[in-house]
Amino acid sequence: MLKIGLLGAGRIGRVHARAISEHSKSQLAAVSDAVSEAAESLAGEYQAETRSSEDIIADSSIDAVLIATPTDTHSDLIEAATRAGKAVLCEKPVDLDLERAIACQQIASDTGQPVMVGFNRRFDPNFAAMKASFDANEIGKAELLSITSFDPAPPSVSYVKVSGGLFRDMMIHDFDMANYLLGQLPIAVSAVGTSVIDPEIGQAGDVDTAVVTMTYSDGRIAVIKNSRRAVYGYDQRVELLGSEGLLQAQNILENSVVKSTADGVVGAKPTYFFLERYMNAYRAEWSAFVDAVEAGSDMPVTLEDGVAALAMAEAATRSAQSGRPVLLDEVLKPVAK
Amino acid sequence: MLKIGLLGAGRIGRVHARAISEHSKSQLAAVSDAVSEAAESLAGEYQAETRSSEDIIADSSIDAVLIATPTDTHSDLIEAATRAGKAVLCEKPVDLDLERAIACQQIASDTGQPVMVGFNRRFDPNFAAMKASFDANEIGKAELLSITSFDPAPPSVSYVKVSGGLFRDMMIHDFDMANYLLGQLPIAVSAVGTSVIDPEIGQAGDVDTAVVTMTYSDGRIAVIKNSRRAVYGYDQRVELLGSEGLLQAQNILENSVVKSTADGVVGAKPTYFFLERYMNAYRAEWSAFVDAVEAGSDMPVTLEDGVAALAMAEAATRSAQSGRPVLLDEVLKPVAK
Amino acid sequence: MLKIGLLGAGRIGRVHARAISEHSKSQLAAVSDAVSEAAESLAGEYQAETRSSEDIIADSSIDAVLIATPTDTHSDLIEAATRAGKAVLCEKPVDLDLERAIACQQIASDTGQPVMVGFNRRFDPNFAAMKASFDANEIGKAELLSITSFDPAPPSVSYVKVSGGLFRDMMIHDFDMANYLLGQLPIAVSAVGTSVIDPEIGQAGDVDTAVVTMTYSDGRIAVIKNSRRAVYGYDQRVELLGSEGLLQAQNILENSVVKSTADGVVGAKPTYFFLERYMNAYRAEWSAFVDAVEAGSDMPVTLEDGVAALAMAEAATRSAQSGRPVLLDEVLKPVAK
Amino acid sequence: MLKIGLLGAGRIGRVHARAISEHSKSQLAAVSDAVSEAAESLAGEYQAETRSSEDIIADSSIDAVLIATPTDTHSDLIEAATRAGKAVLCEKPVDLDLERAIACQQIASDTGQPVMVGFNRRFDPNFAAMKASFDANEIGKAELLSITSFDPAPPSVSYVKVSGGLFRDMMIHDFDMANYLLGQLPIAVSAVGTSVIDPEIGQAGDVDTAVVTMTYSDGRIAVIKNSRRAVYGYDQRVELLGSEGLLQAQNILENSVVKSTADGVVGAKPTYFFLERYMNAYRAEWSAFVDAVEAGSDMPVTLEDGVAALAMAEAATRSAQSGRPVLLDEVLKPVAK
Repeated sequence: MLKIGLLGAGRIGRVHARAISEHSKSQLAAVSDAVSEAAESLAGEYQAETRSSEDIIADSSIDAVLIATPTDTHSDLIEAATRAGKAVLCEKPVDLDLERAIACQQIASDTGQPVMVGFNRRFDPNFAAMKASFDANEIGKAELLSITSFDPAPPSVSYVKVSGGLFRDMMIHDFDMANYLLGQLPIAVSAVGTSVIDPEIGQAGDVDTAVVTMTYSDGRIAVIKNSRRAVYGYDQRVELLGSEGLLQAQNILENSVVKSTADGVVGAKPTYFFLERYMNAYRAEWSAFVDAVEAGSDMPVTLEDGVAALAMAEAATRSAQSGRPVLLDEVLKPVAK
Repeated sequence: MLKIGLLGAGRIGRVHARAISEHSKSQLAAVSDAVSEAAESLAGEYQAETRSSEDIIADSSIDAVLIATPTDTHSDLIEAATRAGKAVLCEKPVDLDLERAIACQQIASDTGQPVMVGFNRRFDPNFAAMKASFDANEIGKAELLSITSFDPAPPSVSYVKVSGGLFRDMMIHDFDMANYLLGQLPIAVSAVGTSVIDPEIGQAGDVDTAVVTMTYSDGRIAVIKNSRRAVYGYDQRVELLGSEGLLQAQNILENSVVKSTADGVVGAKPTYFFLERYMNAYRAEWSAFVDAVEAGSDMPVTLEDGVAALAMAEAATRSAQSGRPVLLDEVLKPVAK
Repeated sequence: MLKIGLLGAGRIGRVHARAISEHSKSQLAAVSDAVSEAAESLAGEYQAETRSSEDIIADSSIDAVLIATPTDTHSDLIEAATRAGKAVLCEKPVDLDLERAIACQQIASDTGQPVMVGFNRRFDPNFAAMKASFDANEIGKAELLSITSFDPAPPSVSYVKVSGGLFRDMMIHDFDMANYLLGQLPIAVSAVGTSVIDPEIGQAGDVDTAVVTMTYSDGRIAVIKNSRRAVYGYDQRVELLGSEGLLQAQNILENSVVKSTADGVVGAKPTYFFLERYMNAYRAEWSAFVDAVEAGSDMPVTLEDGVAALAMAEAATRSAQSGRPVLLDEVLKPVAK
Repeated sequence: MLKIGLLGAGRIGRVHARAISEHSKSQLAAVSDAVSEAAESLAGEYQAETRSSEDIIADSSIDAVLIATPTDTHSDLIEAATRAGKAVLCEKPVDLDLERAIACQQIASDTGQPVMVGFNRRFDPNFAAMKASFDANEIGKAELLSITSFDPAPPSVSYVKVSGGLFRDMMIHDFDMANYLLGQLPIAVSAVGTSVIDPEIGQAGDVDTAVVTMTYSDGRIAVIKNSRRAVYGYDQRVELLGSEGLLQAQNILENSVVKSTADGVVGAKPTYFFLERYMNAYRAEWSAFVDAVEAGSDMPVTLEDGVAALAMAEAATRSAQSGRPVLLDEVLKPVAK
């Protein structure tokens, strides 16, 4: 039984607490949060202790920590926890600053402790089935990948201001999905973004609608579409065109009921947002982490994966600002040792 | 070029006129109708003559007649036309009276002239693809056939009164579809019917909603559901469960547009009624008739097929009235010579 | 926290153990099974005790029992448990013998203890959404209900021999679904059945493919199709045609991936069987039971519901044997007091 | 009855001949083709004359010409025909050279004769239904348009060499679709292209897979994906995300049959190529042309529309070569008078 310390008791922390608690081989031992009421409420629900992050990291009886705190604390906590000998599952992104993330990766790597980055969508059974089909060569060689990823409603402008921007905060999931499916990083990233949904998002320096095109050394192309608002729900679709066919992962619907009337044929909407859509993925993610820790095997998503997606987000941000394609090397080389 | 006489210039006659005229090997030469304005209007559209049915049948330059007159004239016209040496395509049903239909079949058979019955659905490309898959053994042995056939809106009560009833007028298409797909007649027919849509239909001695179950000598079962009203359009679906799979022919929709809003995901309705749904089938039916006439080969749907479907309708009518299953032999034996 | 005794540690018992254990207000306290290894294994998984059914029922610290034993013990256990003051959730069917089930219902009713029958499909969110739409009058007045319910593979012939037959063992779920959706019992039941899948099932006195048609006092019709074998998975669909539209609950698929190749467009199969398809329904069923016990409110599915579905199964069995419709009153009146 | 001269008797010429001939208000009078056998064969089928293009244009009894000749003759023929007082329907693209196309537009405009460009997809009933829904404000303000347009198989390399390249030959349809749906031209066009399907296409200076992103003055974005090979058929889908919903025009399938077996649930492929997919659109296009000529009203697709799409193709070509976004003004200003 792994004893787990959960750092961060916000919305996503609660999702992880549930997965930790339901797993037969892990136990939620302690919870920390800057807002002590949040920590206490969550800890109480699972008969866990409320402690500071420092205490949890220092406690040798804690086997692993799950970092679900604000992004600007991720790197420090990853470093502290790995130095204290803990296995770590950290929410995405690793950091908003690529250089800082790379430094963190180096330090964590030096400790030899396993660190997994929380790209939950890799564990969604639908995307996993898609990847399995592609890996089994059922559609031949990949040629054109398309990812559609729309949130149901835009976040508050105050959130936008600290989010690092759409590319680092939201599209980072899609960058990782491209890396996961294609098993390869792009050469160049070309982005356009706009604040067509809410001009205040634009005034805050961010975009709410964006399209990114990526090119690869072997000629394949990937395109990612993001919107902060799809009033019909959380739109999460992936298409991969190959030399011998097309794979599509379609939306998951709220239910299977179809109503036909004089007004048309009406089906259910996609599940509303990530908690509904990806709860099974969060469970599977946690299970994969526990399995890897117990087996001492490689983490299924690494800190390198987290850095790669962040570098693509950085390149996209620069491309949207400059209006020209940005090479991944332009972004990575200056910060590499 | 086959010269064609069209007997009957009503709604279905107009459909056939178009198919006859569009076909490169047939020409609409003459049109008759009890309502002379209808005949003249249709004839004018296609540069054809307006004549009486008797004249058309007597005209040796006419190669074939298409009978689209009221049902109670079908048998007489089939007999007259075949005796006059014409090929015949006759709309369903052959007759409302089974004994009369069987007599007509005998007389037509004695003339040696080819007669085809207009079960247009056999020529729908979707049902044809379904049959091809079944015949290619793609789902193994047939076990359970289900036909859903709903009209968009009930006919007038005055039509109902002369229609011969739902089983002979509407479900006869589905009886023939069962025969076409399964290649076999049932042993017994069990029907329930109700006038839940419109009590006036019940007062007129007919039903507007009905379910018929049929059993076969090799153990398979078929079930047909009819409703005179599906407010969302013409619902035409067939499912065949076999030992190795299921075949479904689904509805054809008005268009391929899907609209997702906060209210749900809305697709198009099925095409409204048989003219929209089966126009291609009517064209293919006519083409098959022309081909068979030209080649001197067997008709793709025979008068025997028309009699078989009528016998099933008769059995269903009796079953709905008596509340017990009716053997097809009970219906056929007393009228067989 | 309700302390629960689970009687029966077979396949369905394990499903319930999981739901009991996951619920925050119930605790699996004790498990019994005629096969002691089964009981011990399951009890060990949930830190519960292994005891005899009699001991569990006699233990005043146990609040409720869940009966998941062989059908021929249900009535006795319901009577014993309710007499011992326990709330009961009993798997379907109540009994194979209608008279015995009615006697049990009377005895349980006299104790005043709440008894719920495990018609899990009522708690499936898809069927629940369908019912909610119908109850909200979104398709008007019900006219024609169709239920398709196919198992992926037939059970062993040895199981068939003790199952009570397809109508009591399998279609009983569909009878209850009809009662749930329509809120009304039929007047007459007409059944045809065949052993087209496996002749040994026929030799064992049962059928493996069946169609039942039911008529109602207000003219509506219901039809249920059952097959013991659909090689593509567990096919569970419901359609309700109303005066203003059609509601369909479609299958739940294994995943949302679609693969298009030169061979066609291939989607996932339906989830394989009831454990996958209805796990959420079992959880919701248990939650509804706990809520009703805690609130002292009416059970969401009653012993009367269990008897009604059994009576319909009895009528269907007699109809399939006699070849004529059987009135529900023919079945119920002789055994009513 | 409009007398029509058809210039060009190749594959697309034959499609138009059929539409011209089926229309009740137009008659195919004469056909020309550089390959005289092609002209004769087609003319013979429709009882038309075979003549030279010059003769047809000079014949005052011909009311309109349909230009379906090789692209490099389009501008000259448009000019000649309009100067001769004829109405013109010309296949896309107007020209491969933007400057030439603009000059042609000016000359044709000076004659006052109506010229329509053959962007047939505007007349597809599915895209038309999508536009009608958007124009009726059913999804609010447009934010993100996505067009997927894949051919089933790449053309021969010899065709590629004279085609003007994927952007002018294939994606030009999608540029026009964007203009049609959004009613607005983009500011900037950003393209990536690759020859991942066939390196010989790359050696011929063209691409076979491409993604184009376009930005608009009001912030909306459009993305077009093209591939020369989708082995499952002609993939033609459009999605428009708006402030209040999403519109999707999905593929049209070969038939409505679905087969479920142990291997999965298999549906029909999209119709194979443009002849099958857009035959109805070609008919509707011709009908719209005839209506506009007869009414003397504005052409539903103008030469200006043809020039706009060509300018976007030119911008995309330059962007793919230079690796930077190209403003539409960069392309249009230098050639504007």
